[in-house]
Amino acid sequence: MSRERLVVIGGDAAGMSAASQARRRRGPDELEIVAFERGRATSYSACGIPYWIGGAVASEAELIARTPEQHRANGIDVRMCTEVVAIDLAARTVTSRGPEGEAVDGWDALVYATGSVPMRPSAPGFDAPGVHGVQVLDDGVDLIRELDSGRVQRVVVVGGGYIGLELAEACRVRGLDVTVVDRSPTPIGTFDPDVGRFLADAVTALGIRLVLGVGATEVETGPDGRAVAVHTEDGQRLPADLVVLGLGVRPNVQLAVAAGIPLGPSGGIAVDTRMRTQVDGVWAAGDCVESVHRLSGQRLVVALGTHANKQGRVAGINLGGGYATFPGVIGTAITKVCDLEVARTGLSEAEAEAAGYRFVTAHVDSTTRAGYFPGATAIRVKLLAEKRSGRLLGAQIVGREGSAKRIDTLAACIWNEMSVDEVLGLDLSYAPPFSPVWDPVLIAARKAFEAVEADVRADDRA
Amino acid sequence: MSRERLVVIGGDAAGMSAASQARRRRGPDELEIVAFERGRATSYSACGIPYWIGGAVASEAELIARTPEQHRANGIDVRMCTEVVAIDLAARTVTSRGPEGEAVDGWDALVYATGSVPMRPSAPGFDAPGVHGVQVLDDGVDLIRELDSGRVQRVVVVGGGYIGLELAEACRVRGLDVTVVDRSPTPIGTFDPDVGRFLADAVTALGIRLVLGVGATEVETGPDGRAVAVHTEDGQRLPADLVVLGLGVRPNVQLAVAAGIPLGPSGGIAVDTRMRTQVDGVWAAGDCVESVHRLSGQRLVVALGTHANKQGRVAGINLGGGYATFPGVIGTAITKVCDLEVARTGLSEAEAEAAGYRFVTAHVDSTTRAGYFPGATAIRVKLLAEKRSGRLLGAQIVGREGSAKRIDTLAACIWNEMSVDEVLGLDLSYAPPFSPVWDPVLIAARKAFEAVEADVRADDRA
Repeated sequence: MSRERLVVIGGDAAGMSAASQARRRRGPDELEIVAFERGRATSYSACGIPYWIGGAVASEAELIARTPEQHRANGIDVRMCTEVVAIDLAARTVTSRGPEGEAVDGWDALVYATGSVPMRPSAPGFDAPGVHGVQVLDDGVDLIRELDSGRVQRVVVVGGGYIGLELAEACRVRGLDVTVVDRSPTPIGTFDPDVGRFLADAVTALGIRLVLGVGATEVETGPDGRAVAVHTEDGQRLPADLVVLGLGVRPNVQLAVAAGIPLGPSGGIAVDTRMRTQVDGVWAAGDCVESVHRLSGQRLVVALGTHANKQGRVAGINLGGGYATFPGVIGTAITKVCDLEVARTGLSEAEAEAAGYRFVTAHVDSTTRAGYFPGATAIRVKLLAEKRSGRLLGAQIVGREGSAKRIDTLAACIWNEMSVDEVLGLDLSYAPPFSPVWDPVLIAARKAFEAVEADVRADDRA
Repeated sequence: MSRERLVVIGGDAAGMSAASQARRRRGPDELEIVAFERGRATSYSACGIPYWIGGAVASEAELIARTPEQHRANGIDVRMCTEVVAIDLAARTVTSRGPEGEAVDGWDALVYATGSVPMRPSAPGFDAPGVHGVQVLDDGVDLIRELDSGRVQRVVVVGGGYIGLELAEACRVRGLDVTVVDRSPTPIGTFDPDVGRFLADAVTALGIRLVLGVGATEVETGPDGRAVAVHTEDGQRLPADLVVLGLGVRPNVQLAVAAGIPLGPSGGIAVDTRMRTQVDGVWAAGDCVESVHRLSGQRLVVALGTHANKQGRVAGINLGGGYATFPGVIGTAITKVCDLEVARTGLSEAEAEAAGYRFVTAHVDSTTRAGYFPGATAIRVKLLAEKRSGRLLGAQIVGREGSAKRIDTLAACIWNEMSVDEVLGLDLSYAPPFSPVWDPVLIAARKAFEAVEADVRADDRA
């Protein structure tokens, strides 16, 4: 049996998970693995970059889970600072450019794991010097260099999603004047506004200025061509020594499109449950692929390290001759602004409506520990339950230390299509240092169940 | 329609939850509710008593969720310091003794919610002055009075379960010499010894002496009849100014047995899923009833405030003309020793064996946050998965701040009979301040899945 070659494009979470899993199942005699990475690092935590900028993480090195040398020791030929510039599906080759010039390499199997790129509006000035997207490690290096230069006092963050807020906090922690502009009425628009309001308060309490409900229309540049201000739809001019893009990311599919690897309706690479693209022998994983939402049935792109790792693992197991599938997502997400924790899973009100569900909502304000126990802090749990069936459709949590990770319990409930009445029966842990005798999750389920019943009675009367 | 009377025996979690739910559904014109409580308080947190003794909770009042006056304002006739001494099932009456002497009251429905009593060995000296069980608020008052007296320097806790350890820590926090004696090889014998070892280390680090693997045979008393030492099976004599019982509790069923209300095989009152006893019109809830374990099918008594509240709610809804059921338990429990958090759900190795399961185990050592994130601490997750099917049978977690509440996610997985492979697919929350990119729960599931697969291959070779 002749040795096959697997080529991996992208040396971060998805690509290197795929390479590592394939290697575990097929030795170097059987499978050659070549991975191309255009940057200087492999297997790093992009999610950790804002904390590095803010100083909570001391150095770039801490963000790297596995170095090129470690991968090489594992029998994976990693080509650093080498960008794949073309894929030829017919010839089964990739063309790359790196320190040693241009090269063409053949493959029997290909993993496309190019990740995502920050959204950058096409409006004037968004490509000017002084406008920073933060996606790869080198973006972090660039941003830190600017912030360390002493020239920057005023930062405008365009976009108040997860990354936008994390970067805004990082800049604020450095003592800068920070303004966040976002179209949504409250930050992180994927939270319902009643939950987002708490986020707005926490951001404001940190001394960050919020400009909400309006989009940014333009980045004004100075005589040297550098960004000097952001203009908004309602005519505000927000002076800025530095502009940070926090508008989210889009799948990095340029190379795939050029090669003819089909995308799905969301704009991510279309893959099946085993992470196969529609081209024989070509696999894809991570931020560049689209996933299925288990509740809405919708195809969507979710850029998150945890999915990238899992999808890479699935691709690698299958490539190695095993069998594994990626079962889809339910929109779980979590973050922290200052000491405020927020998390969500399932569908928000707007998403549930868009998916055609009819539902009731309930929320409770409780405490993270027994009310009398030292360190108990406020927690709010909001639930969406389907009308009549009571099926749990979504959950959002906001609170201080010890609040948000409770979302995982609700994610497991949604995953299993439990009704809120069933959730109420769960045997969850209780001791005074950990929760009230009714855990906030259970109180919320009880209230949602009562809301479902009240809705049935209202229907009957109607 | 003539007004009916509901009599509730026991004014804590189960009894008053039942009374409150029944009252919500049936007004005072329809249903009279009389609750008898032998103590001075209603609806208090017995689980909070150790923290009150240790000083983390400032006063008794903080442990009381709802006072007699609050219940009375809700239309419940609470008779305090009044003990029911007999139940006549044929005549449908209870005989009580209280401040105003003996009385006989009729009932149409009865809720038996007498809770539990501390296990007290029948061996010599265990009933001597200076030997304290801690179950009701007045026990806390008595113990605090003794500890405040200045006469106590050496405390021996007999039994190293949840309550035993919590009380041992409370005494240690007060600066006393504390020894814990327990028959198990490690504290809290319902944890597997490999997890219990961490508990033993934490207890020892607190300066508490552990005498493990031996039972206490006798309490030696001094000339005044007071406890002066505890003797163990292996001949040790442990001097004690005070002995605390931490052997767990047994259901308080004396009154029920005398009246002829049937018990189940576990010694708790036999109830159906709606919390009805085998006597028409008589209901029971809380620490005195037996529950069904959803994994082993076994009937057992679990004394825990959270179950008591839920069971009381179920009884009260049914009594009020509604419909609710208690779906059983899966053995979830949690506690904290010093800063070590431990939790379990499902079956331990010994319990799984006893139930006839064959299983594999896996454990992982990970961190509560991304490894590079400030405040990340060590966490160990151990899983039991059924042979072949991979069904998750049990989980144990040990770690520092932010570890143990993750047990709820695994409890939800066990409740839904998920296999570890399915658990691995869950969309759990991820951000660096909250977990590594693979949450420890997921890494554990991955390792357990690999163990299941390895076991299949081993079988095939055999």
